[in-house]
Amino acid sequence: MTFAEKALTPSNMNRISTAALFLAAASAPLFAQTPTPTPLAVDPQVAHLRDDALANDEYAWDITEGLTTEVGERMAGTEAEARARSWAVAKFKALGFTNIRVDEFPVATGLRGAESAEILAPFPQKMFVNALGGSGLTGPEGVTGEIVAFDSVDALRLAPDEAVRGKIVFVDHRMTAAQDGSGYGQFGAPRREAPSYASEKGALAIVIRSIGTDHNRTPHTGVMEFKRGAKPIPAGALSIPDAEQLQRILKRGKPVTMRLRLQGQRIQGKSGNVIAELPGSDPDAAPVMVGCHLDSWDQGTGAIDDASGCGIVTAAAKRIMDQGRPRRTIRVVWFGSEEIGLFGGKDYEARYAKQPHYAIAESDFGADRIWQVDSKLGKDRLEEARMIGAALAPLGIVTNSFEEAEGSDIGDMITAGIPAVGLSQDGTRYFDIHHTANDTLDKIDLVQLRQNVAAWTAMLAVLTGPIEPLKPNRRRGR
Amino acid sequence: MTFAEKALTPSNMNRISTAALFLAAASAPLFAQTPTPTPLAVDPQVAHLRDDALANDEYAWDITEGLTTEVGERMAGTEAEARARSWAVAKFKALGFTNIRVDEFPVATGLRGAESAEILAPFPQKMFVNALGGSGLTGPEGVTGEIVAFDSVDALRLAPDEAVRGKIVFVDHRMTAAQDGSGYGQFGAPRREAPSYASEKGALAIVIRSIGTDHNRTPHTGVMEFKRGAKPIPAGALSIPDAEQLQRILKRGKPVTMRLRLQGQRIQGKSGNVIAELPGSDPDAAPVMVGCHLDSWDQGTGAIDDASGCGIVTAAAKRIMDQGRPRRTIRVVWFGSEEIGLFGGKDYEARYAKQPHYAIAESDFGADRIWQVDSKLGKDRLEEARMIGAALAPLGIVTNSFEEAEGSDIGDMITAGIPAVGLSQDGTRYFDIHHTANDTLDKIDLVQLRQNVAAWTAMLAVLTGPIEPLKPNRRRGR
Repeated sequence: MTFAEKALTPSNMNRISTAALFLAAASAPLFAQTPTPTPLAVDPQVAHLRDDALANDEYAWDITEGLTTEVGERMAGTEAEARARSWAVAKFKALGFTNIRVDEFPVATGLRGAESAEILAPFPQKMFVNALGGSGLTGPEGVTGEIVAFDSVDALRLAPDEAVRGKIVFVDHRMTAAQDGSGYGQFGAPRREAPSYASEKGALAIVIRSIGTDHNRTPHTGVMEFKRGAKPIPAGALSIPDAEQLQRILKRGKPVTMRLRLQGQRIQGKSGNVIAELPGSDPDAAPVMVGCHLDSWDQGTGAIDDASGCGIVTAAAKRIMDQGRPRRTIRVVWFGSEEIGLFGGKDYEARYAKQPHYAIAESDFGADRIWQVDSKLGKDRLEEARMIGAALAPLGIVTNSFEEAEGSDIGDMITAGIPAVGLSQDGTRYFDIHHTANDTLDKIDLVQLRQNVAAWTAMLAVLTGPIEPLKPNRRRGR
Repeated sequence: MTFAEKALTPSNMNRISTAALFLAAASAPLFAQTPTPTPLAVDPQVAHLRDDALANDEYAWDITEGLTTEVGERMAGTEAEARARSWAVAKFKALGFTNIRVDEFPVATGLRGAESAEILAPFPQKMFVNALGGSGLTGPEGVTGEIVAFDSVDALRLAPDEAVRGKIVFVDHRMTAAQDGSGYGQFGAPRREAPSYASEKGALAIVIRSIGTDHNRTPHTGVMEFKRGAKPIPAGALSIPDAEQLQRILKRGKPVTMRLRLQGQRIQGKSGNVIAELPGSDPDAAPVMVGCHLDSWDQGTGAIDDASGCGIVTAAAKRIMDQGRPRRTIRVVWFGSEEIGLFGGKDYEARYAKQPHYAIAESDFGADRIWQVDSKLGKDRLEEARMIGAALAPLGIVTNSFEEAEGSDIGDMITAGIPAVGLSQDGTRYFDIHHTANDTLDKIDLVQLRQNVAAWTAMLAVLTGPIEPLKPNRRRGR
């Protein structure tokens, strides 16, 4: 996930207000705006698909395990991401999808080189650091300067230039875990904004406390872009234990000197979206598109971000394929280059957004259980939105809004008015792992992964319409 | 902690038998050997010292925080360990200890260089590795070979030489967390023994699954020594997620090629023990010696291993100092070079073991709560041993044995018959962190740290005899 969809948008503010209303409702049951849905009967085929996925799904695990094992990291624009596209095409074929294609596009990207951060004085010691995406680069000798520390981006922004000039800025801004991941918008500011302020004030370089909620020596990378006119300076993230250590060292009150080395290279690369379909029985019906992103950051194997998302949405489509032929086409898109700027989503939008889509949705927040469903299908499809809620309720999923939905690569298309559904996963531990070397397969919980597949399968079954059973000789191979 | 004190020794076997007896006793209350202690009255001074430490101790945190912040890692035999000795001397002085001295001794040690492990085929990707202490070294190009995998040290030992020759051995041996840390003896074998077997069979190099219980990309180092006649080969530990990834890659059934680079250098260094005393009122009474180790591995800051141990034992002695003058001298020893071969303990033993010691004890298993006390004070001091148990019982500490005690640096002295006490800490999460970059201050829980200090203070108060209160003008500064 990039920061875009979790920023403090008016839509998030609405969500907070809605939650407040529910709380108010608890003590004031007659409160007028409280939704009071009546139960809807769930189609037995939908219920069966849901429950079978919950108990038995292996597809999502198979895809997540396969992609992370046989490809590993899949940094956007690199040869590894190209191998991942080949892997994806082969997997879609093996699963029986059709209309498989790769839409390529060019991207500018970076390759990580040797990285180190070292306190030279007053207490010599090494720290764990990595470069943010978009960082300026150093030579092998690095840059050496005195640390000037700020508790927040605002404190940096308001500091006089002479306090910052020629120094290494340190921004220490603590993120707190939130189930819905909403902290990422608010707490991500040090990564997104501080490097530009530091550069504009003449800083030599910047290090931030990792945007994360763990205590491992695994720094959290992530994308960042210097404002127009701001010269790129080396910009790194310290692991959280190292940021806390630097705070303690600074509290001793002596000048602190750091040598920071962030080597690497910028390259012009090629990226692409991999698209596959399960054709519907009605050629005139608009398709349902479900997505995830294929690229990952370079230090983990991109298991929670976002191999599992690809596993979940593809498993859901495949489970419908195993059942028969839905009325509407299901289009599965594994986006490229999400992490470095949502480029896969932009490419898809440029090529296809003008074609009709019945609904779009994306899974890109790990593989922990889904706890909430939102949708924005339009006022004339409220019954359908409520039916999705009814189908998901037995999985412990609550219906929140009928007027909003989120998704990283598809965010702009949702804003542009394409109908969308959002299935919100539990993000409590997501930012322990997100964008670190620790994003590996062992962080995926099979039981919760299956709950995700069950929810996506049921949601797809409601959206795609009745599934015409396969004739025995037309069963596609697993 | 090194492996030595947690190996499956006869003393451990006894402990297991004792536990079995207790279990048997539960269903057979008349079982003859079941200990049935009667409650002992705890001296009010001892109880006060204990309870005050539990509620208020700051000394242990201050030492742990200071040593890990102002020195950081303290690899045995290096300049960093020398800085740690200077820090220790200054700290002992500031706390009011006397007879402060440094006993120096020479050690052979290693400095870590660039390290990497890379799967070249069939699925190219990088893995997280570090060299074990005592590993052979590679040049910058590393060594490249096919992986041959074994599930256990025995499987490697029994393999024909031709299966191993010219290859990189991988030993995957899973450690399970145990509260008492006893798994370290059994599960540590891949690190201690496998490199020698691999070398003797002509392997190019060896990588083991880290001896640990976490799922972070932080490999666990630790000491290892090649058997006489076995040529040192590069020997590394993969992080646990990487070892599991390698297993998955191997299961695809294709030959797996790895390039392993473990650079570094061997140096002849200087180490030393830092010793300080709180003199007792009776010059003829043998002292009580309490210890910890000052050195740490090089990637973390040695917070749980073993800055907190030094914090705990020193805080306990200081709290008695604050109360007055005990009958017996308390000698605090911060051992050097524990990690690379228990050299501090050996130096102390050579210099002082022939002098009388009333009791010895060491804290070297993190800072989580103490749950059990053992002692080996001798048959004529059973009442005193029971009194220690009575003083610790309100802290939730159970008395186990009167015939055994453990300690890393002091293990040989205990075996040689010097009276000893062992306070066992909860080790459930110890091997998540042990010998990794993650061994940092944030892993220390202040509440549990204080429980440790309370136990050590009470134990010391029982052993050192009545404390003569300070006259107001003789109060030593905090």
